[in-house]
Amino acid sequence: MSESDSPTIVKWHSASVERARGCVVWFTGLSGSGKSTVANRVDELLANLGTPSFVLDGDNVRHGLNATPQILAQRHSTEFAERFGLTFSSIDREENIRRIACVAELFVAAGLVTLTAFVSPFRRDRDLARQLVVERGGVEDFVEVFVDTPIEICETRDPKGLYKKARAGEIKNFTGISDPYESPNHPELHLAGGSKSIDELANEVVDYLRKIKKVF
Amino acid sequence: MSESDSPTIVKWHSASVERARGCVVWFTGLSGSGKSTVANRVDELLANLGTPSFVLDGDNVRHGLNATPQILAQRHSTEFAERFGLTFSSIDREENIRRIACVAELFVAAGLVTLTAFVSPFRRDRDLARQLVVERGGVEDFVEVFVDTPIEICETRDPKGLYKKARAGEIKNFTGISDPYESPNHPELHLAGGSKSIDELANEVVDYLRKIKKVF
Repeated sequence: MSESDSPTIVKWHSASVERARGCVVWFTGLSGSGKSTVANRVDELLANLGTPSFVLDGDNVRHGLNATPQILAQRHSTEFAERFGLTFSSIDREENIRRIACVAELFVAAGLVTLTAFVSPFRRDRDLARQLVVERGGVEDFVEVFVDTPIEICETRDPKGLYKKARAGEIKNFTGISDPYESPNHPELHLAGGSKSIDELANEVVDYLRKIKKVF
Repeated sequence: MSESDSPTIVKWHSASVERARGCVVWFTGLSGSGKSTVANRVDELLANLGTPSFVLDGDNVRHGLNATPQILAQRHSTEFAERFGLTFSSIDREENIRRIACVAELFVAAGLVTLTAFVSPFRRDRDLARQLVVERGGVEDFVEVFVDTPIEICETRDPKGLYKKARAGEIKNFTGISDPYESPNHPELHLAGGSKSIDELANEVVDYLRKIKKVF
């Protein structure tokens, strides 16, 4: 990017490494549907196949990139924490998904199969994520995976006790209970989360990635 | 993360792939000092060595993750764009660096040598970046590289015509002209940006990474 007239430097330019793009595998579904579990199993399978991959989920973005005001206030001013911390308001959830999509696109540019596991209940947000990723590459760079598990099963699992709290009214705006979940109209993959084993579901994803030549 | 009582699913847990962490190579220095150029050359050298790496710089975060209000307004509401778009105010520059550090940490967790090239003029911000990265791994995961190029040389290069505009008063708060640059006190690497070739500088970085066993 820089050119220099400095006599000591003959050539002063930046060359970018050309990389094959990875892709985003965007898991969407209710809390408890199995998104993270399947994503992590796919991650394992890809690691065994030698395909670079990574899982982005609540565990690794909630305390960092998309931290709440409370978490940010531990290291920043109150003004800063209030301005940039993300709550669960509608506009903040939109920003939450936007940041994740932008980061996922960077991982794709770095060549990784990037597995994202977030409820992401709104079509508009998922469509924006798709747009942000494909416009820098191609349509095959975004794979939407609907983990379609009946809410009764999700509620039985309830790994974090969230459904119970939502039913008791302790959590407001809970997807599937008091807030809508908009099913994908045309996901690249539609997984029957309630009736198959994790290995079966994960293998469906890997087979699809093989078909579109993101895994060899 | 989830456990199920569903009879069709024998084992329902998520396993995370254990990965060797990469590291952040955090380039800091004046505009025109050669940060991006050296980072991109290191990226090339690492690619040739088979070490996974990636460059985070203004080119790939400015239009996405850390977009300005103007850019965000193209796809989001005015309220959204104003709330989350980053300007060049002091607090917004702090958030700019924080988001980059969080993303860099995710890349490190994914196993990549992550080369960041931002002016990052304030010690406090660079120290926060270091803290965010090392607390999830080890002290060897953050390598601060001071690209120490005399401002006279940077100004001669002036690849984007920014110094000219800053001198003319068209850009306010320009690092090195009207805003301070705080040199690192104890950077892991101190590069003589004005008197060596890019290849020499890039090889100093690669040699250091080899020494701390981030490159083989």
